[in-house]
Parts: sequence; C-alpha cells; structure tokens
Amino acid sequence: MKKIINDPENFEREMLEGICAAYGDKVGLLEDDPKVLVSKYPVRDGKVGIVTLGGSGHLPVFLGYVGQGMLDACAVGNVFASPSAKVMTDAIRYADHGNGVLCLYGNYGGDKLNTAMAREEADFDDIETAEVIVADDICSSPVETKENRRGVAGMVYAFKIAGASADNGDDLQTVAANAEKALANIRTMGAALTPCIVPRAGEPGFTIGDDEIEIGMGIHGEPGIEVRKMITADELAETLFAPINAELQLGEGDECSVMINGLGATPLEEQFILYRKIAQLIEGCGASIVMPHVGEFATSMEMAGVSLTIFKLDAQLKELLLQDANTPFYTTANK
Amino acid sequence: MKKIINDPENFEREMLEGICAAYGDKVGLLEDDPKVLVSKYPVRDGKVGIVTLGGSGHLPVFLGYVGQGMLDACAVGNVFASPSAKVMTDAIRYADHGNGVLCLYGNYGGDKLNTAMAREEADFDDIETAEVIVADDICSSPVETKENRRGVAGMVYAFKIAGASADNGDDLQTVAANAEKALANIRTMGAALTPCIVPRAGEPGFTIGDDEIEIGMGIHGEPGIEVRKMITADELAETLFAPINAELQLGEGDECSVMINGLGATPLEEQFILYRKIAQLIEGCGASIVMPHVGEFATSMEMAGVSLTIFKLDAQLKELLLQDANTPFYTTANK
Repeated sequence: MKKIINDPENFEREMLEGICAAYGDKVGLLEDDPKVLVSKYPVRDGKVGIVTLGGSGHLPVFLGYVGQGMLDACAVGNVFASPSAKVMTDAIRYADHGNGVLCLYGNYGGDKLNTAMAREEADFDDIETAEVIVADDICSSPVETKENRRGVAGMVYAFKIAGASADNGDDLQTVAANAEKALANIRTMGAALTPCIVPRAGEPGFTIGDDEIEIGMGIHGEPGIEVRKMITADELAETLFAPINAELQLGEGDECSVMINGLGATPLEEQFILYRKIAQLIEGCGASIVMPHVGEFATSMEMAGVSLTIFKLDAQLKELLLQDANTPFYTTANK
Repeated sequence: MKKIINDPENFEREMLEGICAAYGDKVGLLEDDPKVLVSKYPVRDGKVGIVTLGGSGHLPVFLGYVGQGMLDACAVGNVFASPSAKVMTDAIRYADHGNGVLCLYGNYGGDKLNTAMAREEADFDDIETAEVIVADDICSSPVETKENRRGVAGMVYAFKIAGASADNGDDLQTVAANAEKALANIRTMGAALTPCIVPRAGEPGFTIGDDEIEIGMGIHGEPGIEVRKMITADELAETLFAPINAELQLGEGDECSVMINGLGATPLEEQFILYRKIAQLIEGCGASIVMPHVGEFATSMEMAGVSLTIFKLDAQLKELLLQDANTPFYTTANK
C-alpha cells in the first residue's frame, strides 16, 4: 500500500493533529473528546449552531467546513465510518449558543442513527435541535424516492447557506428552512475512474477497468448506474448535466452555481476542461453561473473522478451564497 | 488513457477556456495572443510588473498565481513545454505599467532561452526588465552548484514576496532583490509515488514500483536521488526535512513558513499526517511556523507524491508573506 501514513490505526488521530498543528488558531479539538473539531472563529451571541458528522477520507468534507459562516463543529469518524452518538452529542453541546443547533449531514444509515441518539441526549440537556439531511446524489435513487439518495458534494452548498443564515441571526427553524430550500435546488452526479484504498484495508475494495469509467459511483465506492468505456470530457459533461437538468430545469434568465469537484486524483486541468463544457451547456439554457466552485470539495482519498453539482439560485439563496465565509479549507475571498 | 479530456491537441486551449469561463472577471487571455493569461485585478499606477512562464500540467503553477499581489501575467506553454519567446514578450508588454517588469521563473533551459529573447524584444520597446530564477529543488544539484537546481514549489513563495513588494510601490531593483532574498531562504525537496501521463503521449514516461517511493524526483519526472521501499509518513518527513535544514539551519526563535505540496493525487489527509511530523521537527529546532501552506500548489497532473518547502523568514519577509494577495487559485484570506 502506497500511502503517506504511519500505522493505519492512527490515521484519523494523526490527520487531526496535523490539521490542528497547521490551523490551531482557527479550529481545535475538544479536550475531553478529541474526535470533535470545533471552530475558534468569533460568533455573534446566540447564533444558531450548525454541526455535521461523518467518516474521514473526504477532505475537505466534512471537518474542513468548520469555521466562520459554515459549521460550528464536526463529529469525526474513522475512514468511511460514522462517529459515535457520544461524539455527535459533544459536537452539538459545543455548538449550542443558547438558541439551538441544526444537524446538517449526509443521508447515511450510521450517521442518521447516531444523530437521532445524539439529539435525544441534547434534549435531556435542554438543547433544541433540528435536522436537515443532504440527499443530492441523483444516481443513488430515482426522483420518486429521492429521500433515499446519498449526500455528496452538494452538502458544501448546504453548509454555506445554513451558515450564512445562522450568521445573520436567523432562528433555528429559519436556518433549517433555508438549508431545506437550498437542497431542494441542489443536484449532484459523479463518475469515477479509479478506486481508492481505505488505510486499514490496505487495498482497493473494488476495481474499475483500465479503459472504463463508472457513472454514478458513490464517494465510498458504492456502485454506480453504468460502467462505460472511457468517454471524452465533453461527453462526460453532457452525461452528468442532462439528468441533473431534467430535475432542475434551468431556463432563460436563471442563475445557478456550479461545482466541479475532483474526487482526489483528478488534475485541475481536467476539471477546467470539464467546466468549460458545463458552462456552455448552462449558457445554452439561457442561464448564467454565479460563484463557480472548481477543485476538491468532497473527495474519496485518492480516487480519480469528478462530480458535478448544480445549485439553482433565487435572489435570497444567491445572497446567502455570496455572504462571507472563512474556514481553513474554504473562503469566499475570491467569489 | 483515462483522462477527462477531449482531443489531447486541445488540452491547453480548453483548459484556458475553462479557467476564463470560471474566472473571466479576474483573469483573461490576450486577444491577439491567447497563450498569455493576464490579471484583471486593479493595480496601482506605475506598479512594477511581474511575469512568469512555463509549461502546463502543474496547476495552480504557473498561471494560477496571476492576480492581485502576485503575478500580472503568465506565458503558458503546452504540457511540460516552454511557451515561445513571442508569448513571453507579449506577457512582458502587458505587465509593464511604465516602471519595468520582473521575469520570475523556474530554472529550465527552454524557459531561460525564451525569456532571454523576450527581454531583448522588450528592450527594443524600451521596457526595462530584470530576471530572478527560481532554483529551490535541493535534490537536483549539490549546494556547491546550487545555481543548477530546478525550480519547483518554492516559486509560489517567490511570487508572493515579489508581488507584495511590487504592490507596495517598490522599484524594479528592489522587487528583484526581495525575490532574490526570499529565494536565498527557500528550499524544497520532493518524493513521488506514481508517474503522471502527458496527454499527447497517452502513457506514463517512467515507472515507480508498486512498493517504492522515489526521493527527489522532479515535477516532470526527472530522476530523483534514490528509490526506496515505501516508508512511513514520519520517516518521509525526516527524509525531506534533514537535507533542507542542513542548508537553512533553523534555530531557536527562528520563524519559517512551511509548504506541504501535493503533487496531484495525494489525499489532503496524508498531507496533514506529514505536516504533523514536520511541525514537530521544526518545533524541535526551537523554531515556529508562520502561515502554513498545505494542499496542491505545484502539481504534476495525476502524480502521487509530495514536496516539502521551507521558507526561513526575517521580519521583512514575514511582513511581505502576510500581505494580502488574491488570485482565483490563492488567497491570504485565512493566513
């Protein structure tokens, strides 16, 4: 196994220590629960807290969005594994500033179960909570059962919108409603070219042929909807855009944000070649792009591949998207 | 070949079109020479211009640093190939605001030759130029002949320092002297785990064994100094740090910036595990770290591996490093 790691058993702890060594003035670990990464950025009194949880191996997702204008805390699991309910409870406790906490996270069984238990614990502490579940991956379930879809890169936009709403002083119900509204307008579809290696396993859990691309694969290697012979960037753009736009229906005068997300090993050059065609397709609908995101936002370690997320905006969502946010891994400085 | 591209012949043009589609309000291509990417950020009257040149395939190097507080223009070559002297001349012409232009670039034969010709052309136009050559890769030549070393990730720090100096209104000689001073205190060493594929070639130009790491490999696959069986992250940290620090001699009370640079396919998780140990080694010298850089700054497409750059600071260099800069690919927002 060629990974720049020490003992695989220490992968998550050493990663967290590295992040805190680099950005200890901005984020930190809870002393009595060092699987909770928390924001040290200043917050306004009584701000609604926002927390997420999830397995490691997806940086910057999840913990990379802890900071100003996004998440207050993140419960960190082992690679591709949910953290415990206790860890999530500690994250909620930290994030509460007296006006409740939104649990905003991806639609995975372990994360749902642990969040449910953590919310019960928080209730004993008289901390009000709400939850919004991210289910943006259109390949993981048909539109008729879209509540079953997995949460992938679109969660970054959801963190951004909820975080901006909370920063504005909105109450818990409003922050949750804004996250829901954003997610109703967010769709993602991905494709993978290579597998990735879970450190404790030491070898890939699946294979993709040397001349093949798997359309719709999940960020943990969940099977996609189709394995194809390798296609061009323009063909891939059309393959990803059409099903997304069948649901979002971009039209004349619409505005949207676009995220081209590298899954880990895909060069930026290739991401911009893909973006070029996506921008043409969106322009072809008469729509325009606001604040494009091109780079690595939700990865699967060293997996090669990309996902496309489109976020259809209205005036309110656009304003929340453009509002300032800063974390060690994300900034609106160049929006 | 599994790359998200169209015709390999169009790789650079389509990448540039994608970048301009995404960030057209911040950067653009010269209409009569669309291989020159230029900054559209506002500049103060008479600012010294800063330009670079180099082959494609290293994003964000080189063109990603065109913007406010770094480069005014970049002459873009094909993958791993220098752009022509004409392209570099056009970049210099754009960057001149009446007080001359610094050509700041990596130590590669084609880039040196083309810059020499471009500077002669600029001289005919009465544009004053200076040049500073980046040669930070300590594995590419011994210290006795360090002028022969290649330029790698350390150039990002050189762009930052020269750009800040120019933004402050310093004259051409001062900007060049500050870049030279920075580079005298910058050293880089890298290691590769996998090769990369040049699009027009379609297959890797070299191989690295499945259980091997090549220490000191260049960002175009230039041979390193040693091939080893895979080592741990902590061993790699010591392997990279010791030769760098033999030259920089970090000691009690010193400050430095550290860049852990992913070469393309190395997960951020692994980069932070490496950073953790580097931070311990620097602390062990009694020195401290200012404004760490962890991520992809100078890549080699889908090559797996990392480089370590250390930049030893004094008060002046620290101030220039911390000064604001913004490009589509780089920001000091979270310094």
